[in-house]
Amino acid sequence: MATRLQPARHNQLVLDCPLPLDSGAAVASPAIAYEAYGRLNDARDNAILICHALTMDQYVASTHPVTGKPGWWAKVVRPGGVIDTDRYHVICANVIGSCMGSSGPASDDPGSGQPYAMRFPVVTIGDMVRAQAMLLDRLGIARLHAVVGGSMGGMQALAWAAHYPDRVDRALIIASAARHSAQNIAFHEVGRQAIMADPNWRGGDYYASGEPPTKGLAVARMAAHITYLSEAGLTEKFGRQLQDREAKTFGFDADFQVESYLRHQGISFVDRFDANSYLYITRAMDYFDLGDPHGGRLADAFRQSPVRFGLVSFDSDWLYPTAESRRIVQALHAAGAQASFVELSSPFGHDAFLLDSPELWRLISGFIEAGR
Amino acid sequence: MATRLQPARHNQLVLDCPLPLDSGAAVASPAIAYEAYGRLNDARDNAILICHALTMDQYVASTHPVTGKPGWWAKVVRPGGVIDTDRYHVICANVIGSCMGSSGPASDDPGSGQPYAMRFPVVTIGDMVRAQAMLLDRLGIARLHAVVGGSMGGMQALAWAAHYPDRVDRALIIASAARHSAQNIAFHEVGRQAIMADPNWRGGDYYASGEPPTKGLAVARMAAHITYLSEAGLTEKFGRQLQDREAKTFGFDADFQVESYLRHQGISFVDRFDANSYLYITRAMDYFDLGDPHGGRLADAFRQSPVRFGLVSFDSDWLYPTAESRRIVQALHAAGAQASFVELSSPFGHDAFLLDSPELWRLISGFIEAGR
Repeated sequence: MATRLQPARHNQLVLDCPLPLDSGAAVASPAIAYEAYGRLNDARDNAILICHALTMDQYVASTHPVTGKPGWWAKVVRPGGVIDTDRYHVICANVIGSCMGSSGPASDDPGSGQPYAMRFPVVTIGDMVRAQAMLLDRLGIARLHAVVGGSMGGMQALAWAAHYPDRVDRALIIASAARHSAQNIAFHEVGRQAIMADPNWRGGDYYASGEPPTKGLAVARMAAHITYLSEAGLTEKFGRQLQDREAKTFGFDADFQVESYLRHQGISFVDRFDANSYLYITRAMDYFDLGDPHGGRLADAFRQSPVRFGLVSFDSDWLYPTAESRRIVQALHAAGAQASFVELSSPFGHDAFLLDSPELWRLISGFIEAGR
Repeated sequence: MATRLQPARHNQLVLDCPLPLDSGAAVASPAIAYEAYGRLNDARDNAILICHALTMDQYVASTHPVTGKPGWWAKVVRPGGVIDTDRYHVICANVIGSCMGSSGPASDDPGSGQPYAMRFPVVTIGDMVRAQAMLLDRLGIARLHAVVGGSMGGMQALAWAAHYPDRVDRALIIASAARHSAQNIAFHEVGRQAIMADPNWRGGDYYASGEPPTKGLAVARMAAHITYLSEAGLTEKFGRQLQDREAKTFGFDADFQVESYLRHQGISFVDRFDANSYLYITRAMDYFDLGDPHGGRLADAFRQSPVRFGLVSFDSDWLYPTAESRRIVQALHAAGAQASFVELSSPFGHDAFLLDSPELWRLISGFIEAGR
């Protein structure tokens, strides 16, 4: 297990003005790291913003600088692909609070020259989206052809449509929700407690120690990872199969394949992710509730919205179940907005949106091309 | 947070012979702690064995010596109750591997005079049941009118019927399964990793330190606790309600009631439970698969069984879902055994079997009285 995150260079833009936050605080000179693919056309109307999920990043279609793996949606975003970079200018920005080049708890506080750690202000999904809007301002992109995201990316796509309805032609929200449920919050809280219980966490000030709270972060990742998979998917993939052995060892090694798999998920995660960022981003997700400023009336967040909405859920996703997507669609229809919705069948649970899914890809393509 | 388990006196019987284990090892002079209620009649045919769940204990109907709380099923097991102690002799024994008076990792190894810690042999559900059978031998109880259990208690009731069909008239299995699924194993593995990640765990040898791995155990409990509740139940009970505050604090305190509740579940658990016992008992549950010795054919574990079986599941229980109970019933019918099955409706998930449920209580009462 590596003891600290490997440094990596990212394409960054440092804003010359503060980023105001929903909390009332601000990030003084926010850095926003992003990747871009394809050419912005002369009319500047072919930009698509892709919003990433909790532990993903801007490397949607380029090799990850730490893991060396292909981009997380490299099969979708490519020349001639479902999101065709020969025709669209695709942007993906690391969210504020994360650890891949955008300002977050691991960044240096310009005031002290030391990492912010837990002195970084708490951010929200709305703040992530505001940072992206400021980035697009700097890039001279007034309006998006589409904003697309799965999971927490879907929350950002929803927030984009709610807060900047005139800058978004269409919003595609995949395997997501307009608010975090009590169960969602509970799982995140377990992860946060696992990190904070690690003595290496040191109240967040572990950057100088060279000993980040990798064990706590690995446990957090393991707990979360179970929620990304379905019970049926786990059974199909692992069942009760033993790991490289004929019989149970009557010990505490990883006898079962599913144990070995989970341990690997935990251990490999800590090489590419900052524990404090995990705290901040999970908090942002827990705080997310688009209906809250409207007394719980989600429709009021989208009254007469000109945005075209597309929603996709997966039937085996128990983290953001179909009912949450349906609730959004009902609110959008009540608000007089244009919204289509498809529930896809998949055995793979929440993770399905990241996997090879020709059905999903056809939906994405159709939604992006519609009316062009 | 208390730093170590409070000592308590338990009614104990120390066997004068070793307890042979499924692993091939043995526990030299096993102690079995138990509570008994009601009088054993002269015919010795009115004994009911209640088997407890993972973190429960023998204090089914008597005040818990550590927490001072009433027995976990005190409303069910009482004079004139659903399981009527005026008519039945009710026994509940602490499982082998646990920490309430029966031999487990916190017990002293007679060889060294020091706590076994991780030198205690790995035990199985079958071993727990074998220890109970030896206890009943000593108590002069050849045959049980009924064996009853929920969750891991249901696994023991099933194992009783499979291994001692001639000693059990009827077996009632509530909210349980005949094997642990990949998802079940995964959640347990997260809990074990949380404990082992706590530096206070010290490879299990923390008893002399006065500093048990309470933080890791609390995280394990929190993760497990989410699985005991349903998403709908959590939403109904907590939703997104804030804890004693008007607005979000934009910090990492327990803003939401569900966070505060979970933290309390974690913190209070460590005062009454031993972390190593948690490792051992979760392992026993993960190893449980009654069909495994029969090439996966569960029915072969119950061929022509004379035992009358009753099974109950709850529709919102996603830890041991109805499908697992149905699988057992199908196997029992295929084996030519007598089995009845009811799925109850409840919003409370797996925990429903411990809560006030007149419907469940009527089923228990009817099953125990049938044919008397």
